[in-house]
Amino acid sequence: MALVGGGSGSFIGRVHATAAVLDNRAALVAGALSSDPIRAKSSAAGYDIPQDRAYASYQELIDSELAKPATERIDFLTIATPNHMHFPVAKAAVEAGFNVVCDKPMTFDLAQAEELQKLVEKSGVVFAVTHNYTGYPLVRQAREMVQNGELGEIQCIRSNYIQGWLRTRLEASDQKQAAWRTDPTRSGAAGCFGDIGTHAYNLGRYISGLLPRQISCHLRTFETGRALDDYGHAVIQFENGALGTVTASQVTHGRENDVTIEVDGTKGAIQWRQENPNELIVRRNGSAHQIYTRDPNAPYLLPLAKSSCRLPSGHPEAFFEAFANIYRAAFDAMILRIEGKFFETKNTIYPNVYDGVEGMYFIQQSVASSRENGAWLPLQHQAARK
Amino acid sequence: MALVGGGSGSFIGRVHATAAVLDNRAALVAGALSSDPIRAKSSAAGYDIPQDRAYASYQELIDSELAKPATERIDFLTIATPNHMHFPVAKAAVEAGFNVVCDKPMTFDLAQAEELQKLVEKSGVVFAVTHNYTGYPLVRQAREMVQNGELGEIQCIRSNYIQGWLRTRLEASDQKQAAWRTDPTRSGAAGCFGDIGTHAYNLGRYISGLLPRQISCHLRTFETGRALDDYGHAVIQFENGALGTVTASQVTHGRENDVTIEVDGTKGAIQWRQENPNELIVRRNGSAHQIYTRDPNAPYLLPLAKSSCRLPSGHPEAFFEAFANIYRAAFDAMILRIEGKFFETKNTIYPNVYDGVEGMYFIQQSVASSRENGAWLPLQHQAARK
Amino acid sequence: MALVGGGSGSFIGRVHATAAVLDNRAALVAGALSSDPIRAKSSAAGYDIPQDRAYASYQELIDSELAKPATERIDFLTIATPNHMHFPVAKAAVEAGFNVVCDKPMTFDLAQAEELQKLVEKSGVVFAVTHNYTGYPLVRQAREMVQNGELGEIQCIRSNYIQGWLRTRLEASDQKQAAWRTDPTRSGAAGCFGDIGTHAYNLGRYISGLLPRQISCHLRTFETGRALDDYGHAVIQFENGALGTVTASQVTHGRENDVTIEVDGTKGAIQWRQENPNELIVRRNGSAHQIYTRDPNAPYLLPLAKSSCRLPSGHPEAFFEAFANIYRAAFDAMILRIEGKFFETKNTIYPNVYDGVEGMYFIQQSVASSRENGAWLPLQHQAARK
Amino acid sequence: MALVGGGSGSFIGRVHATAAVLDNRAALVAGALSSDPIRAKSSAAGYDIPQDRAYASYQELIDSELAKPATERIDFLTIATPNHMHFPVAKAAVEAGFNVVCDKPMTFDLAQAEELQKLVEKSGVVFAVTHNYTGYPLVRQAREMVQNGELGEIQCIRSNYIQGWLRTRLEASDQKQAAWRTDPTRSGAAGCFGDIGTHAYNLGRYISGLLPRQISCHLRTFETGRALDDYGHAVIQFENGALGTVTASQVTHGRENDVTIEVDGTKGAIQWRQENPNELIVRRNGSAHQIYTRDPNAPYLLPLAKSSCRLPSGHPEAFFEAFANIYRAAFDAMILRIEGKFFETKNTIYPNVYDGVEGMYFIQQSVASSRENGAWLPLQHQAARK
Repeated sequence: MALVGGGSGSFIGRVHATAAVLDNRAALVAGALSSDPIRAKSSAAGYDIPQDRAYASYQELIDSELAKPATERIDFLTIATPNHMHFPVAKAAVEAGFNVVCDKPMTFDLAQAEELQKLVEKSGVVFAVTHNYTGYPLVRQAREMVQNGELGEIQCIRSNYIQGWLRTRLEASDQKQAAWRTDPTRSGAAGCFGDIGTHAYNLGRYISGLLPRQISCHLRTFETGRALDDYGHAVIQFENGALGTVTASQVTHGRENDVTIEVDGTKGAIQWRQENPNELIVRRNGSAHQIYTRDPNAPYLLPLAKSSCRLPSGHPEAFFEAFANIYRAAFDAMILRIEGKFFETKNTIYPNVYDGVEGMYFIQQSVASSRENGAWLPLQHQAARK
Repeated sequence: MALVGGGSGSFIGRVHATAAVLDNRAALVAGALSSDPIRAKSSAAGYDIPQDRAYASYQELIDSELAKPATERIDFLTIATPNHMHFPVAKAAVEAGFNVVCDKPMTFDLAQAEELQKLVEKSGVVFAVTHNYTGYPLVRQAREMVQNGELGEIQCIRSNYIQGWLRTRLEASDQKQAAWRTDPTRSGAAGCFGDIGTHAYNLGRYISGLLPRQISCHLRTFETGRALDDYGHAVIQFENGALGTVTASQVTHGRENDVTIEVDGTKGAIQWRQENPNELIVRRNGSAHQIYTRDPNAPYLLPLAKSSCRLPSGHPEAFFEAFANIYRAAFDAMILRIEGKFFETKNTIYPNVYDGVEGMYFIQQSVASSRENGAWLPLQHQAARK
Repeated sequence: MALVGGGSGSFIGRVHATAAVLDNRAALVAGALSSDPIRAKSSAAGYDIPQDRAYASYQELIDSELAKPATERIDFLTIATPNHMHFPVAKAAVEAGFNVVCDKPMTFDLAQAEELQKLVEKSGVVFAVTHNYTGYPLVRQAREMVQNGELGEIQCIRSNYIQGWLRTRLEASDQKQAAWRTDPTRSGAAGCFGDIGTHAYNLGRYISGLLPRQISCHLRTFETGRALDDYGHAVIQFENGALGTVTASQVTHGRENDVTIEVDGTKGAIQWRQENPNELIVRRNGSAHQIYTRDPNAPYLLPLAKSSCRLPSGHPEAFFEAFANIYRAAFDAMILRIEGKFFETKNTIYPNVYDGVEGMYFIQQSVASSRENGAWLPLQHQAARK
Repeated sequence: MALVGGGSGSFIGRVHATAAVLDNRAALVAGALSSDPIRAKSSAAGYDIPQDRAYASYQELIDSELAKPATERIDFLTIATPNHMHFPVAKAAVEAGFNVVCDKPMTFDLAQAEELQKLVEKSGVVFAVTHNYTGYPLVRQAREMVQNGELGEIQCIRSNYIQGWLRTRLEASDQKQAAWRTDPTRSGAAGCFGDIGTHAYNLGRYISGLLPRQISCHLRTFETGRALDDYGHAVIQFENGALGTVTASQVTHGRENDVTIEVDGTKGAIQWRQENPNELIVRRNGSAHQIYTRDPNAPYLLPLAKSSCRLPSGHPEAFFEAFANIYRAAFDAMILRIEGKFFETKNTIYPNVYDGVEGMYFIQQSVASSRENGAWLPLQHQAARK
């Protein structure tokens, strides 16, 4: 495994490095940790990456690793750079035949995403996008319940992602995390909606499997002087007539990382909150409210949820473990690829390149709808997987 | 006090009768409890109303009470009929000079509401509308915090009212509560949005004091064969640039009466849930999350909230008490009126006729916007109070 | 109905007055509201008690009411005085043939309680003790579930009553509530354990129906200079081998009125918290955690719980309503008594004189055990009802 | 790092292996994974331990590693066997000069614990005991708050550890986890109280720093035929006059791993629950309830708590991370030892051999007190650290 991005000061690079090895199925052996060659080298020690595989650029990484014998080179590459660098790195890696785990949003804009999709299809590599909230066992339980028909037909999806850390203009003080996220040249067309609105939307898509039709969106920038949105709300019509709403905020005082989703079906309704991820509330008229917990021995837990657990019930698993579940599923595919066997590329448990394309389409159409005062625009991309 | 509506099988009539007397400031002595004269009489015993003041119709009630000497006649009249009867009863009562407490929505349509507003202005009676969620001490605390500037400028309001009881077509089995609420001839232009969406909207208006500008609305009827909406979502632009959302559902499995509101300001954010009404969550970046409780001795509680409590902290107060707080404030005004003194008619603590007009405008514009696929329509009525 | 005690500054007097009339089955018409004759008179207006029935003493109240024709005199009398006055008032009322609703603890000491029990048995009046937490619908649900065998055999009971208001010596500043509760001449042998420990113990007895055998108790006074305990813990052995614990605190910072109970049976376990009284958590191995709510239409709610509700689910009921449920059951018995019919005196839904005796025994044995460093002492009084 | 115990079917072995490497400061390179030599070998692949360091016994492991050059041998050894094997393995490792991380309870009985203490003192190795609940950032925050005097003098500690998995006699079906825990020859003198009661007791000691004086204990075996206790309750007197209670259950239906602790001080009170470990409730009379969250940027978080976090707030950390925090602190000490520098051995952040001795004393005295019907017995061992 090699890591691109993740130099000192990074948050998500460390998360990838930790989650990828959690099951002892991978080792981090190479990296191009920063776009600054000096920093790229100096950051390597923190990851225990030997200096001779601490590359000064992603190009060098790919070239050098390709030059090694197959048994010694990396199996895959994780991309944890700012958004604008996702595409060039991914493109190079995919073209070189490396499997890729890429942070979200997958690319800078939709055009890049569509091009990347073609490259992945051509190369046949495993490509995972870390929409990490799909890795929680109880999110997967929710998905399975929908697919099993336990909730009946899905009619309403309400997802929210509420934070408060950009309530002040942190970017003005050059805080690294804030700086690139609020900069249109590094983040893309949307700020808040690209950073976290996509997660909320993806979560609804992942659980429900519903195909979208149209979006009407309202983005706002509440902190004066900021170039991108820091709050947004979208209404979504799904193909089956369901109505969805997505709310994302970075300016709500005191809220940390409050991702919630509620899905209403004709036979049951579920509710999940990421800050308390080991519980799923399941409701049916005429029955007591039920709290499903992350319990690998629970009769009510479906196979996919059970196999996503590492600990007995009551011993909370959380963020790293959810990330690691994306890796676990991607590793399974990587092994099949090494063995030359068939592996699913579209309907995977891990978010893939098609989900990445969809995410970029969501951002593009959100921004466009908002610019037209909430006009309804199409939302179903041909890459959308059911 | 006289009660119009509330015959056997009624829910809200009993609530009014109980809440009105909770502080021992009123007694229920007369009623026209049903549109069916037989039932109107027979229901009286259940309220301890003497047979000679159990009237067969609201007209008879008003005429007979007017005929009594001033010291013996009722001081006010509570209207707890289905929506379509609110206006004729209210009109007759107001014209007769009786104070009125009217359930919401105030009338059947906007035209009636506007006419009623004029009648109330002309007669000078006290007129309260039971948007009862405004009666909770911690909702009032939230309102005072906004007015004191503790939350800074308000930028986002998210209110939800989620129920599940109309997930099946109860109206088909002639369940009384369901029957009139889903019948356009008795309920009005909107179903779910008229019944509970208005509460959610009103709650945001009451707490924030923000004046609305435009609405974009999406109503849905998910139960086949139902004439009115059973789910709806509205996006609201406020005059100061704030963005609001209102979601109302009657078809979410297992949800009971889940009213929640979140208000984001530049200096702080609050969150309140009606099913746990004795807590208000207050958040500010850099501080611990705070839970304000309904504690009349708490230094952090503002005067209006303190004076709305009846019990010490930790002894939960709830639905009846919130209703009673509307009555308490209306009684204060009625006493001033009896004494011939000035009493505030517009900026009252209890929801008044202007709020009633606003509510009807909200319903009308919601339905109109939804019919035009979410077109933005004006939402600020001239009756709107700041 | 007449009220003894409850003069200005009283908390529980007002609660009785409000709860007793909540169902419109009683009216407060007479009172002896204070031991100070002037105050007894002056407090009457606040309750709308006419001056001619605002008596200067409880003796005067009883004598005067007895002198009235049967149809005009009060049916029952509520005692809401400090503890030391409970017995003389109750004795006089019972001997005069009046039904009584008495606040808890029933008397000042066990000897009085036992004497009162005999007087009640002799007179045949209805006698209720307001262990009010037994009035919550979901507490009654818990009791019914135990009686139905749904939880199997009960083996563990953990009850806690945690407050913080006596963390400082409020009594030194003559705060009325604190003053008598911390004064052994008015409160009795125990402070915290008499005031709230008895509630916690009673709640376990009410729900489980288990007969106690022995108690080992540890009382503490953490605020220097206070005469009575402000913290205590008891271990209880029940006859069937079950183990119970009771913890009561008045010195835990910030805790309001936090009554919780957990009951473990061989087939299921339940958990309830008074500050969130409309929920009961029910757990069974292998099943999802269940939240039963106060829903009169819920198939899982048992008849006694259903009939203890006044409002639909999701519309929280609380403290007054729980109190009113004690009154409701006592009224049912009073009516049977008026009609000359049999009424249950021992196994009543409302706490009765036998529960009162048990409560006094609990206090006596708690204090005695604590003085002997937690020695095991008998706890089963012959009055104990199963 | 070498692992002793942890063969297939083990729970805690895997936890150690994962947590130890979470910060990339250790690698698992050797093991004696089972007392069955075949299984010891075959389990190695699951940990990626090379076959030549997959030893058939702990003796072989220690001998073989000692035979390697210092730079190639393991730095420390983790013991994750059933309780009865802790001592012989620990003794051998300590005598060989290896640092040790040992699961709890530290030994089979007190005598072994005291001997081990002396061996550790003599050898000068780093010795950590995984009372893992002390590793949660907010538990450490609580400890720091006590030490800073923020809570004033500590007067009451209530800790509970409630599980339900041994409600049936799983041991009868030879479930591995249940079998050794309920077997006196492998688990020791206590069952439930040794397995989880010690955790609850240790947590109170860790946070409060109070020295114990006496214990009065009541153990119960509710499942017929079981040899050891499956429920227990202890009352503890601390040297400063504080009163503590410890309740532990393995037979409460549906409860998973519900560790809670409440600590009352004269200036403030705190409450923490392991199943929601990223929140700490802090209360002070006259202030709103406060929820401290695991937020490394929060001004209210003290240095020890901040340095125990790996992720930003709102991204829940949990069980593995808490375990890893014990390792992190032990690693710091191991490095100092390698460098020949002084390292603290008694007042460490990680639980150490003295805590292990105390734990064994707690078990011994619990059992003895319970056998004498709750007689008060001494609880302060000379090894107890303040």
